Amino acid sequence: MYEHTDVLKALNVSKAEELLKEIKGKTPLFVCTIATTETAKIPGISAAGQNPEFTDLTPPADTEFLYYGRCRCISGVPVTPDGIPTPAIITRAAINLSNIPMLVVDGGSRVKPQIPFIDVGGQPGMDIRTSKAVKDVNSVFERAKVLGKSLAAMSDYLVLGESIPGGTTTALSVMLAIGIAAKRRVSSSMPNNPHELKLSVVNKAMEVAGIEEGELAGEPLKAIAAMGDPAQVTMSGLVVGAAEIPTILAGGTQMAAVLAIVDQIDPSARDRLAIGTTKWVLRDPSSDLVSLVRQVGDVPIMAANLDFSSLKHSGLRAYESGAVKEGVGAGGVSISAMTMTSGQITMLSLQQEIEREYERILGGKAS
Amino acid sequence: MYEHTDVLKALNVSKAEELLKEIKGKTPLFVCTIATTETAKIPGISAAGQNPEFTDLTPPADTEFLYYGRCRCISGVPVTPDGIPTPAIITRAAINLSNIPMLVVDGGSRVKPQIPFIDVGGQPGMDIRTSKAVKDVNSVFERAKVLGKSLAAMSDYLVLGESIPGGTTTALSVMLAIGIAAKRRVSSSMPNNPHELKLSVVNKAMEVAGIEEGELAGEPLKAIAAMGDPAQVTMSGLVVGAAEIPTILAGGTQMAAVLAIVDQIDPSARDRLAIGTTKWVLRDPSSDLVSLVRQVGDVPIMAANLDFSSLKHSGLRAYESGAVKEGVGAGGVSISAMTMTSGQITMLSLQQEIEREYERILGGKAS
Repeated sequence: MYEHTDVLKALNVSKAEELLKEIKGKTPLFVCTIATTETAKIPGISAAGQNPEFTDLTPPADTEFLYYGRCRCISGVPVTPDGIPTPAIITRAAINLSNIPMLVVDGGSRVKPQIPFIDVGGQPGMDIRTSKAVKDVNSVFERAKVLGKSLAAMSDYLVLGESIPGGTTTALSVMLAIGIAAKRRVSSSMPNNPHELKLSVVNKAMEVAGIEEGELAGEPLKAIAAMGDPAQVTMSGLVVGAAEIPTILAGGTQMAAVLAIVDQIDPSARDRLAIGTTKWVLRDPSSDLVSLVRQVGDVPIMAANLDFSSLKHSGLRAYESGAVKEGVGAGGVSISAMTMTSGQITMLSLQQEIEREYERILGGKAS
Repeated sequence: MYEHTDVLKALNVSKAEELLKEIKGKTPLFVCTIATTETAKIPGISAAGQNPEFTDLTPPADTEFLYYGRCRCISGVPVTPDGIPTPAIITRAAINLSNIPMLVVDGGSRVKPQIPFIDVGGQPGMDIRTSKAVKDVNSVFERAKVLGKSLAAMSDYLVLGESIPGGTTTALSVMLAIGIAAKRRVSSSMPNNPHELKLSVVNKAMEVAGIEEGELAGEPLKAIAAMGDPAQVTMSGLVVGAAEIPTILAGGTQMAAVLAIVDQIDPSARDRLAIGTTKWVLRDPSSDLVSLVRQVGDVPIMAANLDFSSLKHSGLRAYESGAVKEGVGAGGVSISAMTMTSGQITMLSLQQEIEREYERILGGKAS
């Protein structure tokens, strides 16, 4: 059995423990939502790629990697400018061990992944400084919602992950617009969280849209349409549609935004939600997931206690210095992989598999 | 419990009974593959629509109806030229009663449904008389196969249905190309099966492609590329990918083609397959499902013993005169709805629900 210390709990600890008991031995469905935006191309906003244009390729590359163990739309795997690999490595390692089933939903990506993916009618997001960030929010929300309902009928519980570059900036803007005090509290995939840059982009977006902080409280789809991203509306629809089963929002502070959005659309859909993330987000000194979530409600937060400090490869050890931290459902899928088996998958075996995946990539082998 | 007589069995009766025992109480995943072709627009080939161009709308309309209880891309529901309604009515009624989860896969349709659907990279099919009927068969097959593997990880068993106008003609051409004696054995959604028209189209396709009957035995993807349809390659990939769980091929003689294709790609994938259809196909005097299946192997055939002869509405009673017969997974989903519950869903309650659905449509109400 995985150790008590393998999953950290925060905020509503007793509900986190109840949930861990409820999902023990059960198989989740992992649903990874992808999207791209022009916002992510603002220099300095996203670390997901060597250069801004590369952000269009990160989500398809991440999900191709999950399916095939190699990317098709790029050679190699997505890395930060410093060469630190995508968190999809963690997700894939957890899936390798657990055989957790997976579906990819395209919330709106410019480059389509060369995998089977679910289309909900979304389009790539624009720059939030245009005040027209996301098209068709109502119809995408409705389609994601009926999809969520279908997925709930086929699963014990859902784990919802994401791959959307620049997602913490759009999380910040939507949270501010709907009344969550989010300034300097969102996370970053870079060790030096560019809070001032994000805030200046978001302030500009609010100015262009003519929206004050908190002005769109109760109208989260309007906030997304003006200054959010396509993954937010897709994931919110999925959560509301799947409200009858538990859902783990598998991600960092972007998922606090989804939680806040869902809470303002349908508060009852919040009851069966938890955040599932990594230790690197939960203990990140440059952001504050707990305070973001607490503003929405007493929602359990769980974090996979991944520790890369003694791994062989510097590319992985860099996670301990604040690089990457989370993404592609890494934390939530790790937690589920450990809870679904009794003893076979531990944090130790997971970390060994992550090293194997990393070495396989370095060696350039497909599987 | 549903009556023994509610599910007819043919060919491998003992294996059909074993399978019915195995799936009893279990929840399937219903996967409906849609596609359109230029072949379907050849006058007289398809009854799926008032006029040939309407065939592009039938698959999206069918699946919109399954999701929402009404179509979005057309007003009303798909009907034959005589006004007989789509078999999606049967499927939806069975899902209403059973809550069987559902996903739609777009094998290649010209008009996309306004629902969540899975994209496997397929494109609409061309006229088989061009000898270039289906593009990218290898990549679509591979994507459908990885999708099938994912679906198998999340389901007890699959029920695969289809909505593709003109599908029996492309079934005929592929079966002939790969060595199945299919002449005058495929079914039709029309009471008067236009065998001669279908054969003349198929003969022309073979002539253009320079292919003799049976010449592509062992090369079914090549046969599909030349003179098949996009749903065939998609469904075959799904079946091969999901080979570790049972799959009910929910359809008529089109599914005999899928069975033959799968058998020639990976014979071991055939072991867990069954055909699930309707009485109207199994007992159709103008076609011969059993002989088609028997040529592939000793595969169980099950048929929902739907009987519309005493229903109030002539549009439904027309099914007893050979109109429509099957489609959109109607037979297989009906069987699964009955086996998954103990006693709640019987052929009688299903038929009552079908009448209710039909009356709801006539009344124009959404749900």
